[in-house]
Amino acid sequence: MASSLNLLFPLLLISIFSSISIASYHPLDPLSPSELTQVHTILKKSITTRRNMTFHYVGLDEPDKPFVQSWLSNNNIKNIPPRKAFVIVRYDGKTHEIVVDLSTNSISSNKVYKGSGYPLLTPEEQTVANELPFKYPPFLASMKKRGLSLKEVVCVSMSIGWFGEGKTSRVVKVVGYYMNGTVNLYMRPIEGITITVDLDQMKIVEYLDREIVTIPKAEGTEYRESKQDGPLGSTISMKMNGQKINVSGHTVRWDNWEFHVSFDMRGGAMLSLASFYDPDKDERRQVIYQGHVAELFVPYMDLTEDWYYRTFFDSGEFGAGLCTVPLEPLRDCPENAVYLDGHFVGLDGTPAKIPNAMCLFERYAGNTLWRHTETAIAGKLLTEAIPETTLVVRSVFTLSNYDYIVDWEFKRTGTIKITTGLSGMLEVRADKYTHADQIKEEVYGAIIAENTLGTNHDHFLSFYLDLDIDGQANSFVKNKLTTKRVNGNGSKRKSYWTVVSETVKTESEAKLKLGSGNTELLVVNPNKKTNVGNSVGYRLVPESVVGPLLSEDDYPQIRAAFSNYNVWVTPYNKSEKYASGIYVDQGHGDDTLAVWTLRDREIENKDIVVWYTLGFHHAPHQEDFPIMPTLTGGFELRPTNFFDHNPLLNSKPSKKVNLT
Amino acid sequence: MASSLNLLFPLLLISIFSSISIASYHPLDPLSPSELTQVHTILKKSITTRRNMTFHYVGLDEPDKPFVQSWLSNNNIKNIPPRKAFVIVRYDGKTHEIVVDLSTNSISSNKVYKGSGYPLLTPEEQTVANELPFKYPPFLASMKKRGLSLKEVVCVSMSIGWFGEGKTSRVVKVVGYYMNGTVNLYMRPIEGITITVDLDQMKIVEYLDREIVTIPKAEGTEYRESKQDGPLGSTISMKMNGQKINVSGHTVRWDNWEFHVSFDMRGGAMLSLASFYDPDKDERRQVIYQGHVAELFVPYMDLTEDWYYRTFFDSGEFGAGLCTVPLEPLRDCPENAVYLDGHFVGLDGTPAKIPNAMCLFERYAGNTLWRHTETAIAGKLLTEAIPETTLVVRSVFTLSNYDYIVDWEFKRTGTIKITTGLSGMLEVRADKYTHADQIKEEVYGAIIAENTLGTNHDHFLSFYLDLDIDGQANSFVKNKLTTKRVNGNGSKRKSYWTVVSETVKTESEAKLKLGSGNTELLVVNPNKKTNVGNSVGYRLVPESVVGPLLSEDDYPQIRAAFSNYNVWVTPYNKSEKYASGIYVDQGHGDDTLAVWTLRDREIENKDIVVWYTLGFHHAPHQEDFPIMPTLTGGFELRPTNFFDHNPLLNSKPSKKVNLT
Repeated sequence: MASSLNLLFPLLLISIFSSISIASYHPLDPLSPSELTQVHTILKKSITTRRNMTFHYVGLDEPDKPFVQSWLSNNNIKNIPPRKAFVIVRYDGKTHEIVVDLSTNSISSNKVYKGSGYPLLTPEEQTVANELPFKYPPFLASMKKRGLSLKEVVCVSMSIGWFGEGKTSRVVKVVGYYMNGTVNLYMRPIEGITITVDLDQMKIVEYLDREIVTIPKAEGTEYRESKQDGPLGSTISMKMNGQKINVSGHTVRWDNWEFHVSFDMRGGAMLSLASFYDPDKDERRQVIYQGHVAELFVPYMDLTEDWYYRTFFDSGEFGAGLCTVPLEPLRDCPENAVYLDGHFVGLDGTPAKIPNAMCLFERYAGNTLWRHTETAIAGKLLTEAIPETTLVVRSVFTLSNYDYIVDWEFKRTGTIKITTGLSGMLEVRADKYTHADQIKEEVYGAIIAENTLGTNHDHFLSFYLDLDIDGQANSFVKNKLTTKRVNGNGSKRKSYWTVVSETVKTESEAKLKLGSGNTELLVVNPNKKTNVGNSVGYRLVPESVVGPLLSEDDYPQIRAAFSNYNVWVTPYNKSEKYASGIYVDQGHGDDTLAVWTLRDREIENKDIVVWYTLGFHHAPHQEDFPIMPTLTGGFELRPTNFFDHNPLLNSKPSKKVNLT
Repeated sequence: MASSLNLLFPLLLISIFSSISIASYHPLDPLSPSELTQVHTILKKSITTRRNMTFHYVGLDEPDKPFVQSWLSNNNIKNIPPRKAFVIVRYDGKTHEIVVDLSTNSISSNKVYKGSGYPLLTPEEQTVANELPFKYPPFLASMKKRGLSLKEVVCVSMSIGWFGEGKTSRVVKVVGYYMNGTVNLYMRPIEGITITVDLDQMKIVEYLDREIVTIPKAEGTEYRESKQDGPLGSTISMKMNGQKINVSGHTVRWDNWEFHVSFDMRGGAMLSLASFYDPDKDERRQVIYQGHVAELFVPYMDLTEDWYYRTFFDSGEFGAGLCTVPLEPLRDCPENAVYLDGHFVGLDGTPAKIPNAMCLFERYAGNTLWRHTETAIAGKLLTEAIPETTLVVRSVFTLSNYDYIVDWEFKRTGTIKITTGLSGMLEVRADKYTHADQIKEEVYGAIIAENTLGTNHDHFLSFYLDLDIDGQANSFVKNKLTTKRVNGNGSKRKSYWTVVSETVKTESEAKLKLGSGNTELLVVNPNKKTNVGNSVGYRLVPESVVGPLLSEDDYPQIRAAFSNYNVWVTPYNKSEKYASGIYVDQGHGDDTLAVWTLRDREIENKDIVVWYTLGFHHAPHQEDFPIMPTLTGGFELRPTNFFDHNPLLNSKPSKKVNLT
């Protein structure tokens, strides 16, 4: 489901075509508002049928990786390539992929996209679609029949998925909710009505009022703090005399870390060029070239007429960036946070801003980086404990009812922890039942309040992780902890485990479903060794082993085939950024990670990308009503023989050691 | 390995036999210093062979559960049963189990323990054993041969495990480490020497100097902040205007939670009687009767002569309580922490104190309890985000090199999260190798510094969780998320998943190895229903799926058979508190969780206990040298239809709802 948030922020019209400031230039900076305006102007000028042109995506057309690497290492500010934009627009009923060269104010290429699927659904289209029922007599009659006050009805657009059809038109389903005593409309669905809207024609093309279903009551759905008996939150004041967060343009420096944060209409917060200053080597060492949310698949397990199609691709259909919401200072992020805005374009191509789209803050959770109490040295009790602070980059995108909190957390030990929080409201179905004992049929979920079924569903988040461990040529290694029996060599032991290491050669060998926790997954640079000869590397440390339960031949699962495995590894390919492809809305799953990897490309000692899928099965329970306590999951990227030793300690004594 | 910390704190001699203050009485309070002194005095008076009597355990002999429950519900302060102590002493070469009645100043029972295994190794015995080599000429010769300065040598005692022998004497192995330029002795093992000490005779009974192995250098092993170039930690000041932490005796109240924290020589921090105030029902609802660390098994995977026996039971052999270390204010726990002491007895039976053995603090980690941005209501942008604060109960126990941080974290949503942090130093083996390329044989680990092998090992922590969900009669339920194929009912879908619920009848059906993440594990009260008829319950939400890799027939694994499964469920039995039994040192694994459950007792609608094993495989890497960044793992106990709704929200609007 989609957000219409962006309509709430006045679009900024920026008239100054500022040329890029070379001083602040970074090749991965997102398009600035003035660059977005420039794109808009060029397209308006160049495309004659612009009357019906709609903008679905405008983003940076990134310079090729070798250029970025060379720019990084040489800091060669004179050798700046043209800034380019990649644009997806629709006009004359067709989807166009356009590359705009901002340096020449011209269109470099304009191709009609002929594959399956459609580009991002825009908030503006959905807003218009959501208004159509209110002028549609059969809908007005349906509301009247139910005795509902029209001004309390809210409609929301939903993507319709794909279920094996051949050619489809660009449609959404529109579903109604009732407020009338609550702002928590999601807890009051108006069931039994099917409304299909064709977005190209912008009209209702199917309308069915099948049955009247009890609407769950408003009572008990309130969640606003202002309506509670007392304050829900604590007042927190925190002062940390830690490492300063240095933000210069989109480049962030904190402790030994440096990285770049960008923003994209599709991907949301985009992290790149994360490197760690290694004091032993007196150099910055690369860890991540790029990382972002590569898809988010949310299939519901309800087969009823108005639910079976709810198999959402929240990023590919609605845009993690387009649905990014402003963060609330002191609530979403603590007192010590700094904020970055996000920019995108509206349906008409003019730029708009999401204020506070991302926050950065130093976190102190009361943990220790490490600790030790030494009790073995006679007459001494030595305790060392170092409080841990980390740097968090946070953004939130909201898909109507659900809120996704994505944290990239940088640790001083070199670890990067990615955590996703799920909050907001459940998607519930209204039904006649008021008590569990009445339910004798399959209702595809559980009763969580009177007349309210919390529908079973999943969340599968794919993360794109282009690790470049000390450079681009990397290998993917599976370290299998393997039981060895001891056979009559005089040992009193019968068994132990040892590490059996396997360097993966191709894409097909790399994909894996997590299970026993007995395999460690590493990306190593086989060309770089530590002081004692280990390959430098980073480990992917998963928390979750959740995999899909839909059949692999089911249409939604074909489109979400990235979730068939928790881990995939591909050779770097600039065009492969989103696990379910670019044209996800009604797409046939024919241009996805699962399809690309069928080529079974070689991945050993190459520039490789790891795709990690984090899964949640969600069988709702009553505590999720009327608003869900945040459910979190995540994984880590942890240095593993990347450093010669604990990277925060001097490699040599800094002072004369005196054991007194 | 063991701690000799406790010798550093002067034993307190408390002469006042204060009778219990009825006002502050709680049936689960640990024995006070005066009660410990009273036990000591009674035993000294009553047991004539007291000359050689050694104390290995003194703890509260808990009143039976029905009494505690009745005391709780009636607050019947007049009906207080006698305070009793359970004591394990050794004299005349035998282990005695003694119950002392403090109300009558007398011994209620005194039984000789005749089973396998020995009680806790005490710090004092280890300290004496560790000194023996320094007066043992062959050892002095060995040190001289190696050119080592005796005053820089430190010895540490290690339990020897059990490998199928019949009768064994009470021995430990003593191993040497070299300081000379470091306080990080564990990084400088003196290999090649086997020293076995008989603790009853307190003399060296075996001595072998097999070979001289290079001792890793001191350089690079420094970890103290004072010896680093700059400060490692940040200064953090935090003020939270949250819920006050109310500590009365050993009872803690915070937000809607109330619980009792005790301290035990064996178990360390002991949590009990956790209940949550449910505002809807206006009553305290029970969640946990008791919870604590029930064992900690740390097998090393090295089969060499001086390593094969290293299969430690850190709690059962050394005592999680005995090894608990004082927490360092502002370092181990934040500014806003409050502290509780722990009391135990020394080898001679006199009480001693661990100051700051536990801390309690409100944590704010910059997260939200929940959040939602509402974008679907025309003309409004509504954001609700509630910062999350939690209450943490922390304690740390240190087994020579390793430090275990155990957090019980209470969330305002009713969830209890248990997190374990592993820090301190690796147990490393010295070897000739200075580079990975030189290693052609099995070395049972990885080179992490010159001459330093980080040995592969595991940590399996068993948690005892006596959940009493809204009362004692509970059932264990497996909710299996099960794929259903859709066969020709006109649906466009081919599959979905549904929840297949199974109530477990007996112990054998309850044990399980975690794997796919498709089964939800609940403890429900089948006799209590929510407003809409769901069984009230709590879910066990594991993070880790790690299981053992040792063969089940291997002796260490027989003793640690609790780790064969991640989850076990037993009927409550007051005597079954520790997963590997009471007499773990050199025990034969014949009185453990795995043996008890062979009876296959019924567990449906009974007072049940869940045993959860949290596992870590640890294949060391260079970042772990010379001190390990904290590695964490944990699990949650999460309300699941325990409440009728999100428990922090009013069930009814507290004010007239006004949608303006």
